[in-house]
Amino acid sequence: MAKAPVLTPQSEDFPKWYQDVVAKAEMAENGPVRGTMVIRPYGYAIWERMQRELDDRIKAAGAKNAYFPLFIPESYLRKEAQHVEGFSPELAVVTLAGGKELEEPVVVRPTSETIINVFFAKWVQSYRDLPLLINQWANVVRWELRPRIFLRTTEFLWQEGHTAHATQDEARDYALRILHQVYEDFAREVLAFPVVVGRKTERERFAGADATYTIEGMMGDGKALQMGTSHELGQNFAKAFDITFQSETGSTEHAWQTSWGATTRLVGALIMGHGDDAGLRVPPRLAPIQAVILLVRDEEGAGGRAAALAAELRAAGVRVELDDRVATGFGRRAVEWEVKGVPVRIEIGPRDVASGTATMVRRDEPGKLPVSLDGLASTVTRVLDEIQASLLRQAQERREARTSSAATLAEATEAAAAGFVRVPWDEVRGHEDELARDALSVRCLQRADGSVPRSSAEPDLVAVVARAY
Amino acid sequence: MAKAPVLTPQSEDFPKWYQDVVAKAEMAENGPVRGTMVIRPYGYAIWERMQRELDDRIKAAGAKNAYFPLFIPESYLRKEAQHVEGFSPELAVVTLAGGKELEEPVVVRPTSETIINVFFAKWVQSYRDLPLLINQWANVVRWELRPRIFLRTTEFLWQEGHTAHATQDEARDYALRILHQVYEDFAREVLAFPVVVGRKTERERFAGADATYTIEGMMGDGKALQMGTSHELGQNFAKAFDITFQSETGSTEHAWQTSWGATTRLVGALIMGHGDDAGLRVPPRLAPIQAVILLVRDEEGAGGRAAALAAELRAAGVRVELDDRVATGFGRRAVEWEVKGVPVRIEIGPRDVASGTATMVRRDEPGKLPVSLDGLASTVTRVLDEIQASLLRQAQERREARTSSAATLAEATEAAAAGFVRVPWDEVRGHEDELARDALSVRCLQRADGSVPRSSAEPDLVAVVARAY
Repeated sequence: MAKAPVLTPQSEDFPKWYQDVVAKAEMAENGPVRGTMVIRPYGYAIWERMQRELDDRIKAAGAKNAYFPLFIPESYLRKEAQHVEGFSPELAVVTLAGGKELEEPVVVRPTSETIINVFFAKWVQSYRDLPLLINQWANVVRWELRPRIFLRTTEFLWQEGHTAHATQDEARDYALRILHQVYEDFAREVLAFPVVVGRKTERERFAGADATYTIEGMMGDGKALQMGTSHELGQNFAKAFDITFQSETGSTEHAWQTSWGATTRLVGALIMGHGDDAGLRVPPRLAPIQAVILLVRDEEGAGGRAAALAAELRAAGVRVELDDRVATGFGRRAVEWEVKGVPVRIEIGPRDVASGTATMVRRDEPGKLPVSLDGLASTVTRVLDEIQASLLRQAQERREARTSSAATLAEATEAAAAGFVRVPWDEVRGHEDELARDALSVRCLQRADGSVPRSSAEPDLVAVVARAY
Repeated sequence: MAKAPVLTPQSEDFPKWYQDVVAKAEMAENGPVRGTMVIRPYGYAIWERMQRELDDRIKAAGAKNAYFPLFIPESYLRKEAQHVEGFSPELAVVTLAGGKELEEPVVVRPTSETIINVFFAKWVQSYRDLPLLINQWANVVRWELRPRIFLRTTEFLWQEGHTAHATQDEARDYALRILHQVYEDFAREVLAFPVVVGRKTERERFAGADATYTIEGMMGDGKALQMGTSHELGQNFAKAFDITFQSETGSTEHAWQTSWGATTRLVGALIMGHGDDAGLRVPPRLAPIQAVILLVRDEEGAGGRAAALAAELRAAGVRVELDDRVATGFGRRAVEWEVKGVPVRIEIGPRDVASGTATMVRRDEPGKLPVSLDGLASTVTRVLDEIQASLLRQAQERREARTSSAATLAEATEAAAAGFVRVPWDEVRGHEDELARDALSVRCLQRADGSVPRSSAEPDLVAVVARAY
């Protein structure tokens, strides 16, 4: 009954399925200006939970939030040569303001390295001012030729971290700390994603960076999605923006920097990484609604009991919603919560109240289970933990099933149709353009043991090759 | 010793004092594009606390957060005549994007009524879809000719609520609910501001609204600052954007709407409303740092004891910071926390540890007090409550001392040099242009008992006249 075919099956047309979920789960809609999006309340509630979890980890890593202007003088962008080259084609430019043509056009930020570093140059004078660890939550604009909702949008929301350090080692350690303790930890512990963590090749790294580190998730169709990146900027921006400090020994030195970001694209990752033919599946630690109490009919005290159960769950710390819209058909409401991926559904009607039980439906596995109304809160709390673990396990199993090894570029190209391929980097180095012609890319480099290389010149590295969003 | 004259005295030059506090408390700086600002970590931490407190109240009022695009097609603005007339002079316009001239220029949102209502028209079909209660946290841009940091900036951060209702009464009730339960409650309970709550005159109301309600705070120089507004939009936008619904009886009707907002200007209000010659004074319920433990010298176990006390306060729910930067002079650090307005400072050194006491400095009153280290957490918790009440009382006393009554327009004009003037609305009606020539305005209309009128045509209304930011 909760199985009305509201969505295109994944196996039939995965991109169409994705669009269906975005629409039916009321996550988002396209905006009127090409490539922009409206994030609807349910989609935004998920993003707010992501923000909270990421923000806690960012603060634990010592960074403080601040806010820098949306508008950047065009001249700032030109100060770092690779950076402007990378971003120029994507810029939106304000030329008219306050009824007049501007003397110097201003760019709508595509990222904030340039404007932030102008201020870092003022704030950093002495080694005592370092490390300087700043993060901001903001909207940015990159004009997209092939927009896709949440995944590539002209305007998106993100956090961008920017730091300055006294030494290269400190900057590198911090970039890796963010990679592991913020992004990887969030992905695994909250999103239930067993991400592949590694280093980008020179071809794929951020415009202006010396090194880019990444977490890559495998989506339901075997394609990769970059879910967060952390960059070592070396002294490139420090030299372009004159960020110098007096060291402990009295010499004047350029700072070493990092930047790092994660975006609303994570909502797209959530959909494509855990969704199934019935819709979204939201891991409990992320879910804005972890459990819904679904009242079948408000007779014989069932309504009161349902409300009391909701209060009981709320008191136990469960993010619960009571659905007592009995004027709307039960099946329709059940499908709605299923499409929205709420982890646990408790269905309760007059007969259940009489028998002291209810029906529990878990979003991570098929079937319905009877549950006792006594101690329901502790049952639900336990089941939420189980679902969190089971979604991670399912994603892990898919990743393992769809990851293969190849010995040569040709083998890798063939195998990548099915998922991720691990292939010796020596086989791929210098051939990334060929991969690109087959719509493939090196998602990242890893050491043989899966750890993150400090240089792409280390021996015996493995390239993870895949199709990607 | 904590009294170094780092700031221009208020009595000498209030605007200069304000700029000094913004700079010395490291709240914000001007951005490179005229009228923009960089909000520094301490200023942003205060804004984050404001956001959290407002957001909790907005959610309690039933509204849900969402996000709408930054870019609005120029044509949307023109759909509501008064609205476009009000905002046209302030617009920033993107004409170039992705390397090309745009066919239709896009406006950077000055507010989001137009774009949001295009979507409301899609989402609202039946009375069952109402009320629709949406809020968003976003940046907006209004080109400012006379910018002043936090108070009037080209780009600012805010929340903007947008709702649709089935009847005029429901819409009005909701606009007033937001006014009182969100803005007034936040101002009084968190910001410790005894705001004046009333209705804007037609001259002062929002472009496109039928009625605007406001909370007005009195700043340290007796001038008024508008701190939050809530609008009844009537059916103006519903008609312009075709937001119709099928009523319970089957007829097709236009929705009734509200919108409401509060901005980073509240940070300016905090500074000017509670600050004194020594700097900022942040009410404890708002303060990102409620107490600082200031280690005098790290000798004879004082450092360990200070850290333990900080942990003890943190465990008791106090937002505490340990300042153990003993390499920096004690006086300099004390002044820093004073300028930043941290409510409670605990100074502790080796002698204090030996005697089991420390020195407590309250930011709301002069002097230093000895406190026992035993039970320090409960002492601090109690003192924080006292400071919250005392800042509200001080603001209340100033407001009362600087509010007078006048019988005529001429009297009001003279008395308004000192603060707020209450004058019969009948004396002022039709003469607002004259007030404007003296840099005065009607901040709001109230009934004689201080309550909020439902119409500016009610008899015996009182106009509150003042200079304003």
